[in-house]
Amino acid sequence: MADGSPNTVVMKFGGTSVAGAEQIMRAARRIVAAREAGKRVVAVLSARGKTTDELVAQALEISDRPEPREMDMLLSTGERISCALCAMAIHDMGHKAISLTGSQAGIVTDSSHTRARIIDVRAERIEQALAEDRIVLVAGFQGVSTKSHDVTTLGRGGSDTTAVALAAALDAEVCEIYTDVAGVFSADPRIVPDARKLPLATFEETLEMAASGARVLQLRSVEYARNHGVRIHCRSSFEDAPGTLVVSEDESEQETVEQPFVTAVTHSDNEARVTLVGIRDEPGVAGEIFTALAEAGINVDVIIQNEPVGEDELADLSFTIDRSELTGATDALAALGEVSEGLRTDDRIGKVSIIGAGMRSHPGVAARVFEVLGREEINIEMISTSPIKISCVIAADAVPAAVKSLHEAFELGAGAVRPEDAAGAEHHPTVSS
Amino acid sequence: MADGSPNTVVMKFGGTSVAGAEQIMRAARRIVAAREAGKRVVAVLSARGKTTDELVAQALEISDRPEPREMDMLLSTGERISCALCAMAIHDMGHKAISLTGSQAGIVTDSSHTRARIIDVRAERIEQALAEDRIVLVAGFQGVSTKSHDVTTLGRGGSDTTAVALAAALDAEVCEIYTDVAGVFSADPRIVPDARKLPLATFEETLEMAASGARVLQLRSVEYARNHGVRIHCRSSFEDAPGTLVVSEDESEQETVEQPFVTAVTHSDNEARVTLVGIRDEPGVAGEIFTALAEAGINVDVIIQNEPVGEDELADLSFTIDRSELTGATDALAALGEVSEGLRTDDRIGKVSIIGAGMRSHPGVAARVFEVLGREEINIEMISTSPIKISCVIAADAVPAAVKSLHEAFELGAGAVRPEDAAGAEHHPTVSS
Repeated sequence: MADGSPNTVVMKFGGTSVAGAEQIMRAARRIVAAREAGKRVVAVLSARGKTTDELVAQALEISDRPEPREMDMLLSTGERISCALCAMAIHDMGHKAISLTGSQAGIVTDSSHTRARIIDVRAERIEQALAEDRIVLVAGFQGVSTKSHDVTTLGRGGSDTTAVALAAALDAEVCEIYTDVAGVFSADPRIVPDARKLPLATFEETLEMAASGARVLQLRSVEYARNHGVRIHCRSSFEDAPGTLVVSEDESEQETVEQPFVTAVTHSDNEARVTLVGIRDEPGVAGEIFTALAEAGINVDVIIQNEPVGEDELADLSFTIDRSELTGATDALAALGEVSEGLRTDDRIGKVSIIGAGMRSHPGVAARVFEVLGREEINIEMISTSPIKISCVIAADAVPAAVKSLHEAFELGAGAVRPEDAAGAEHHPTVSS
Repeated sequence: MADGSPNTVVMKFGGTSVAGAEQIMRAARRIVAAREAGKRVVAVLSARGKTTDELVAQALEISDRPEPREMDMLLSTGERISCALCAMAIHDMGHKAISLTGSQAGIVTDSSHTRARIIDVRAERIEQALAEDRIVLVAGFQGVSTKSHDVTTLGRGGSDTTAVALAAALDAEVCEIYTDVAGVFSADPRIVPDARKLPLATFEETLEMAASGARVLQLRSVEYARNHGVRIHCRSSFEDAPGTLVVSEDESEQETVEQPFVTAVTHSDNEARVTLVGIRDEPGVAGEIFTALAEAGINVDVIIQNEPVGEDELADLSFTIDRSELTGATDALAALGEVSEGLRTDDRIGKVSIIGAGMRSHPGVAARVFEVLGREEINIEMISTSPIKISCVIAADAVPAAVKSLHEAFELGAGAVRPEDAAGAEHHPTVSS
């Protein structure tokens, strides 16, 4: 197994996987099974079901803008509850278990409350507990700030990052991420019933998927995994079948007979587009606009600027954002005065993307995408590309048809025979219990 | 203000005082008012309303006998939630606040999970926060074990002990305990509508009251206060009127013109009596019995043993316990074999007690108690006394009549004019905001 201690696994269970007593018992049985198979097990747990939402609601009853340090103190309790309960369950199954807070587990972060970044993992206490033959349960999503020793949280999806960071620090053979989804799919199965569970995906592909609408893994955790070479196994907590193994491109190439052109089609249908018509095409104007948006905490996705036309050298600038941030964006732009005069918005925007590490060596993919969407009479409003991704901004209501037609055109479905299937099926089940 | 820094107050709010958003805002306003009156304020909060019960229920869904260490990890989250929310509220009121876990606040305990004892208070972080002009909110009921650095809890009512321990460590002028009760009363107002709120009580009286059924203050917290000379002001979080000041006997004597004979009548109606008929009156027999009960974790209250009668020197031994522990007690005794053959139980037992520091110098009080109960035709089954208390074990259904008649006979009601009233009313309101 490439790098990694052959003996340590990190298992992360999401909110739905610990929602009720029954789910916690199920997670506990999985953890115990791995221990009984000889592994040293560290499990990272999320807060139960709707716990975090309920805590947020309690805070909003008290304050419109809760103090971030106190928000972290509040929200960090949810994961601790999950861990304590799961430790009790494991104890009753005859194994020694110990739950640790993020702080006790040595997850050291910066001081950016509610969106802290991990800057160090001091896993001595975990190592000691493992050496004492304990199963270690770590509260996800949280850490302790290096300077003030305050409780911090890592932001939404932060438990994935906790798990990957621990896997890196412990040199684990794999970081298993258990959710209510069976793995990474070639498209959203709710739109494409024929969508195929991918046996393998590279870090880069998974990053592009996470960034373009797929909801399986949290973006930051995949970045962390790529940077530290942590293999992720993304799988269902409700079935035993293997899920999707996310690995480096090198390892992926060893395991597959031939690299496919395209791996998956992803989409999002909750975007909005903002267009600024007739802005001056001068240095600094775009900087002013995007600085204002950044200061308002708005993430901009696709950006295009038309060539200036006419004598007055005026240009049009368009960009897409998450629909929920549209009001914030227009407020931020209104504060800029003149620039905002030509503001147009469209809140019925979606995006469809095709992703595949093999696209690098197959330059015809973009042409094929445009052809397929054209045949469906879907108008492409903006385009954004990377070496392994092509994204097309389209009308939100055209998204399902676009996803289906692209998935079919690139033969991504379970019905299609693909060279790496055999290889993946062979190599895959060996990585974990 | 006798001892204590003239500038620091510890304010403790119980579960009903932080149950909902409205209550938390009310507590926050009280805390801010004290700060604006120039005090350095440390507030200790309990878990909200039914939070602890809900967490216990979650644990019992998972395990019949939850691992104590994990139980503490679980239960300690409730107080942290209260503190974080209250800190947010104070922040919105324009004051700097910081919430601290028991561990962060320096509450160091032994390792007896679920019933840990405080062995040290290292208040450096609190002192630092106070020096930075912050209001400090401390999660009650919890600490950190000195050896293993695990989260511990102090047992039911432990937040009172946290508050008193912090008041001692910070040399506070007073420890204010806010509950849904207006203070310590001369009897339970639900039984005696005429019951009077006591302006003053001594530590010893309050200890006897807590031990004999009064529910205002937790026994251990009063012991801690007595041992460290911490003045407690027990008052309502829902009204501004002063409550009851609990102080040393010396201070009490300074503040009252004349010591009353009797201060209060307390009662409990949920006791049970166990009688062992015909046991051998030999050294070691009683030891064997009470060791067995202690090992089963059962608290024995009143004990009597009759003089042995007849040639075979057999005696009868009776004791009272909390009714909920009756099954545990009979199980523990059954394991002793022979001793348990003469076991009789009565689960409809209550107790009425009169308490007063002035009883020491008034030997006629016991006689008056027996006379009053006799007139009411209430049979006294067992008697237990201390220098400042007389307890009579009686039938549970006779408790209300016993309380009423004793309260009236000793003229404890609000209608009765008593010498210390004027003095108490004058001295009392000065101790806090």
